[in-house]
Amino acid sequence: MSAAAANASASRKQPPWRVPEAKPVPKLKLYNSMTRTKTEFIPMDGNQVTWYACGPTVYDATHIGHARNYVTLDILHRVVEDYFGYNVLFVENVTDIDDKIIKRARQNYLFNNFKAETTTVTTEAIAKSEEAWKFYAESEFKEINASAIDDWAAFSDKISKDATLKATLATAHPKFPMHFSALQEAFDSIEQAKKSSTTTDAAAFCEANKTTLSSLLDKQLSHTVSDPKVFRDLAAFWEGEFFKDMDRLGVRRPDIMTRVSEYVPEIVTFVEKIISNGYAYEAEGSVYFDTAAFDGKDGHHYAKLAPWSKGDAALMEESEGSLGMKLSGKKSSMDFALWKASKSGEPAWDSPWGPGRPGWHIECSVMASEILGSGMDIHSGGIDLAFPHHDNELAQSEAYHQCDQWVNYFTHCGHLHVEGQKMSKSLKNFISVQQALEKYTPRQLRYFFLLHQWDTGVDFRDTGMSEAIGVETTLNNFFVNAKAMIAEAKNTELESDGTHNFRRLELDMIVALKEKQSAVHAALCDSINTPNAMSELLALVSRTNVYVKDAGNKLNVEVVNKVAKYVTKILKTFGLDGVGIDPIGLSSSGAGAEGASVEDVVLPYLQVLSTFRDTVRSYAREGRPAQEMLALSDKLRDEDLERLGVSLDDREGGKALIKFIPAEELAAQRQAKIQQAEEKAAKKEEAARAREALRLAKLEKGRMAPEEMFRKGPGAAEYGAFDIKGIPTTDKEGNALATSRLKKLAKEWEAQNKLHESFKSEVEKGTIE
Amino acid sequence: MSAAAANASASRKQPPWRVPEAKPVPKLKLYNSMTRTKTEFIPMDGNQVTWYACGPTVYDATHIGHARNYVTLDILHRVVEDYFGYNVLFVENVTDIDDKIIKRARQNYLFNNFKAETTTVTTEAIAKSEEAWKFYAESEFKEINASAIDDWAAFSDKISKDATLKATLATAHPKFPMHFSALQEAFDSIEQAKKSSTTTDAAAFCEANKTTLSSLLDKQLSHTVSDPKVFRDLAAFWEGEFFKDMDRLGVRRPDIMTRVSEYVPEIVTFVEKIISNGYAYEAEGSVYFDTAAFDGKDGHHYAKLAPWSKGDAALMEESEGSLGMKLSGKKSSMDFALWKASKSGEPAWDSPWGPGRPGWHIECSVMASEILGSGMDIHSGGIDLAFPHHDNELAQSEAYHQCDQWVNYFTHCGHLHVEGQKMSKSLKNFISVQQALEKYTPRQLRYFFLLHQWDTGVDFRDTGMSEAIGVETTLNNFFVNAKAMIAEAKNTELESDGTHNFRRLELDMIVALKEKQSAVHAALCDSINTPNAMSELLALVSRTNVYVKDAGNKLNVEVVNKVAKYVTKILKTFGLDGVGIDPIGLSSSGAGAEGASVEDVVLPYLQVLSTFRDTVRSYAREGRPAQEMLALSDKLRDEDLERLGVSLDDREGGKALIKFIPAEELAAQRQAKIQQAEEKAAKKEEAARAREALRLAKLEKGRMAPEEMFRKGPGAAEYGAFDIKGIPTTDKEGNALATSRLKKLAKEWEAQNKLHESFKSEVEKGTIE
Repeated sequence: MSAAAANASASRKQPPWRVPEAKPVPKLKLYNSMTRTKTEFIPMDGNQVTWYACGPTVYDATHIGHARNYVTLDILHRVVEDYFGYNVLFVENVTDIDDKIIKRARQNYLFNNFKAETTTVTTEAIAKSEEAWKFYAESEFKEINASAIDDWAAFSDKISKDATLKATLATAHPKFPMHFSALQEAFDSIEQAKKSSTTTDAAAFCEANKTTLSSLLDKQLSHTVSDPKVFRDLAAFWEGEFFKDMDRLGVRRPDIMTRVSEYVPEIVTFVEKIISNGYAYEAEGSVYFDTAAFDGKDGHHYAKLAPWSKGDAALMEESEGSLGMKLSGKKSSMDFALWKASKSGEPAWDSPWGPGRPGWHIECSVMASEILGSGMDIHSGGIDLAFPHHDNELAQSEAYHQCDQWVNYFTHCGHLHVEGQKMSKSLKNFISVQQALEKYTPRQLRYFFLLHQWDTGVDFRDTGMSEAIGVETTLNNFFVNAKAMIAEAKNTELESDGTHNFRRLELDMIVALKEKQSAVHAALCDSINTPNAMSELLALVSRTNVYVKDAGNKLNVEVVNKVAKYVTKILKTFGLDGVGIDPIGLSSSGAGAEGASVEDVVLPYLQVLSTFRDTVRSYAREGRPAQEMLALSDKLRDEDLERLGVSLDDREGGKALIKFIPAEELAAQRQAKIQQAEEKAAKKEEAARAREALRLAKLEKGRMAPEEMFRKGPGAAEYGAFDIKGIPTTDKEGNALATSRLKKLAKEWEAQNKLHESFKSEVEKGTIE
Repeated sequence: MSAAAANASASRKQPPWRVPEAKPVPKLKLYNSMTRTKTEFIPMDGNQVTWYACGPTVYDATHIGHARNYVTLDILHRVVEDYFGYNVLFVENVTDIDDKIIKRARQNYLFNNFKAETTTVTTEAIAKSEEAWKFYAESEFKEINASAIDDWAAFSDKISKDATLKATLATAHPKFPMHFSALQEAFDSIEQAKKSSTTTDAAAFCEANKTTLSSLLDKQLSHTVSDPKVFRDLAAFWEGEFFKDMDRLGVRRPDIMTRVSEYVPEIVTFVEKIISNGYAYEAEGSVYFDTAAFDGKDGHHYAKLAPWSKGDAALMEESEGSLGMKLSGKKSSMDFALWKASKSGEPAWDSPWGPGRPGWHIECSVMASEILGSGMDIHSGGIDLAFPHHDNELAQSEAYHQCDQWVNYFTHCGHLHVEGQKMSKSLKNFISVQQALEKYTPRQLRYFFLLHQWDTGVDFRDTGMSEAIGVETTLNNFFVNAKAMIAEAKNTELESDGTHNFRRLELDMIVALKEKQSAVHAALCDSINTPNAMSELLALVSRTNVYVKDAGNKLNVEVVNKVAKYVTKILKTFGLDGVGIDPIGLSSSGAGAEGASVEDVVLPYLQVLSTFRDTVRSYAREGRPAQEMLALSDKLRDEDLERLGVSLDDREGGKALIKFIPAEELAAQRQAKIQQAEEKAAKKEEAARAREALRLAKLEKGRMAPEEMFRKGPGAAEYGAFDIKGIPTTDKEGNALATSRLKKLAKEWEAQNKLHESFKSEVEKGTIE
């Protein structure tokens, strides 16, 4: 190759390219309860994330503490899925087998039966209520020998007046105010009923004694409750309420929702395997996890999350359920139930250990394993579940899967207090989600939770909510102003004065935007620190407001728009614009529908409505007949609404059913209906024609007068003579006919006479010629 | 520390946690024209991406080739921004100074003037048109000595019949058919006009000669066009059309849009710096880039993207513009204009080198540098721009910034052909975006482009579009079925038969989903390979359909929903549900509005409509009076629609006006109206009372009978005697009253008589006592 050719060839090659220098970029870290530090998040399978969250035990209304837990979890879920772009598989359970559910369902059922039977306040009803009062007082205030007390008024008076006693009881009983007020209400109603039972409303009387009666009836009659529907109905009702509340709070629905009651066979199998692996034992129909056998063996550790809580009797007891169990078979107080033998009045499933039901902790181990397999990336729950629930779950699952790390990242949402105090019904600071939503919007609540780091405690205070509302207002104002500026600029978009509006101010603003974007990114990488991210967003908004002010009439609206789009995007990622159920599919129009306002969408329907109303009014004024009004409503259905892809199915009872069906389909349906109707009409006509032909044929038989039927009819040649009516008297040979023959001919004559009469009458009417 | 204490302390520590093993995860690579390979994408600044795209030269309608370029670029933009989660700053220019714009604007302007002046087809107009015909034929077909030809008909005939000549011309002139048909149309109209100029429509005549006349007029009169508005108006019009088309195609608007005409001072400064850096020189009022000085110096390379095209004269010439320039000052044929001296009839800006305008390539260098600084991550454009436009841009920018790599990733969108041929107006296969959208929806076009890799050529064929429509149908059917299954399941959501629907089939389906998610991820990492990603999505859909069939009535709708949500998410990322202008801010309701389907949004309005119609029907059937029908329509307006934030303003003519006003505001307005009406009614009542009092007072005057008025009235003492009617005849002294006095009294009597008659009649009626 000559030097010139080599040169030419070299000049035909691209020069070397320099790989850009990668600046250090923050990576997502999560505060992991397994280490109690922030650890880099490394999913097991590329950009797939498996996630299990402890869901609700469904026996009562959700409260603001639940809202905090599930909304905060929803934020984590959305950020991991939508901001960090992982493909998340999110599983959540519904605990619908639980001692609390059993007790509540049974009590409700027994109380409702009692109430239904008590149509008047009988002496028996009063006596039962007194017995219930006494039973409740005895069981809740064991310090007092309640059964020895006869004068209930004096006792009540004593408790309410004796400050020392009251203080003693309050200390011993965190729920003292609740118990006491229940007793007081019941007592008052009993006293009242004793004075005048006839004037007392029976239902009100029962309600006043509900707490005490429920308790006594359950004690006395629980064994009579055997219908599983009693338990399932309560759980189903509260499960429905839970998801309604979650939808209202904008919590994304789990991908897979598992119900304990549907996994009992799998739970039994799971427990059997743990037994066979040597980590559990049966005792008196129940099965317990053998913590001593597990802890320290084969690299297993019991209570990984909270080793310091190991053996905490109070926590253990609470987690084992409120329905007393025989625990005599337990090897160690640290052991916990995998399977509980059921007594009568408790729902029961068959098992190798007799009728029983799953323990609380085992449920999650089984369902998570069924869906996610032998391990998962993230497990979430409220911090109160860490020990013993999650520690037991880990132990069971690691005992079952024979693995040493069933969960890689355990995230726990912090506690919620209300105005500085633990929330409880007894403290009367219990706030249901419904109550919270009467006062605040779902978005305001979400702003509030965003302003608190997910793994720390939160104090739900009015002042905190005011702060959240302030943030909302700031952001709303920013959007309103930005939208107004953009709308204004749209009109002048194509006018150019030959200068641009991208100068120092705009460049600085873009630099500031990038800084804030990086700061938000860093905050979200830092264990999804939403308070910091929010504060960076607010700083960005405030920086932009400064820019707007400085730029004055030289404002570059694109820069504002860019900031507003970014802020919108992040807020949407936080679920502030979200719904519980994510929509699927694309909008029905090709493009553009996504951004359309409600007004744009709704307008065509309203136009149809308005026009219909206009016409109804004018018809009414002109006094047009009802038939025209009905035709009008048919037109609305068949033309105007069909065009909009809405089908109104008129039904019996006069209430039409609304359906959304594409317009073309509707048109085709209606066409098919018309065709059917036409076919039906044609058939009907055909049938009528056939009937007419039949009638005519029948009439035709009567055309011949009876007088002539034998003389001219087909057999005429047989006869010789006839009487006056034309009935033959002799055969053609002149022999008289036999009497029987004559009788028969007379009968035939009468029949023809009848036919002929009909024929003549129709001829008269002109229906036949 | 004792051993026991140490033990206890150890047991209170969390056991060690194992960092999960990171599976190798694909990283985003882009096909980079700088290396002509796929290279890992490493942005300069963390998760910030700066991106510059060459936008349109605005002088004509956008065609399907533009659609391919901008829609494909939009897909890349969305995937990088929304799928990979980068914070992108996306800048795009509008070239509104360009030789094509200048020529088109001037020609349009001159032709329109001519047309406006030519109200009748004069001999002068015919002569001018003949001259234009000749000029056009001469300039477009230089091979023929057109000026020597007198018999135009014969010439035309010759061209159209002489196949050899025609072939020669067609080879030499790619646009032969276009030129020839323009000449033919003009010729025919001139012949026609010569025969009967009076009956020829002047406007039609001008239009028939538009191509030839525009060319001649521009040649003769271009120097007379000095108003910059002529050029700006054309550019502004087509800029507007461009963004309208982009919006219809669902192309996300750039963050910052720059217009060349607004950056001329910056361009001058930029060129000055290149000169002072030694890489450009001035010649005869123009400035040229000195390729020889640049190439190989200080690590610079000229034509990095396409070194093999260096010195390609045809490409160079085309890129230098259609308005001839004196090029005598150029040092090398490879040098290109940074600044062009303007002749009269060309827009001009002041510069150190005299009046002129920017060269084409310099525009992008300057505007990108102004917004993005001294470098950028990604630069995009059509493949036809690679050389010399982008290579010149790189050279200029690196000469200005004294850097060696101004752009890290250059992405070029492939060519578009139509049914196998290059698209051109002359081939009559030119398809404007508007025409394409008459045949296909924006979504169908986008599906088509998604099915082709962005950096390869595309053949826009009907068969290809059928394939795209097939894909759309498959996905639509999937969504429709999924929605129906989900809707059906909603009703049975809380019913449990004690078994779950998550078995082997579901587990396999979830595994398949994860595989497909990973495959889509890998495809998008592989230089955003949308055809592969689409094919993985379609395989997922088909796999899900198999699952649905296999599962039968044991279907787990959550699994289907999960797949459908994922497919939806990816399709949305591809912009299939998008709009050109992204919405900002949150929906006006707290939560739920964004994700709500049109159906959800519309339903409450339809319910109101349907109920109204139901009632109208029942009223009509029952024959209720018109008044009730009207009351019903008032209720619809005042209650049902008010609640929905809709105001119906009834107007004269019976057609109500629809307005959207927040419900509270409407309620307040109506309250105010009621109050006003009440106040008005009170005033009316007050006035009526006053009128009645007045009437009574007036009647009261008539209480006294005229016979008694003088006898008993206030002046009775003045009189002595009275006549029969009670009219005084004498004064109290007995003197007869004067005639004038008598007359006056008689008049008074008559007046009182009238009043008294009225009084009596009212007494009779009972309205006064």
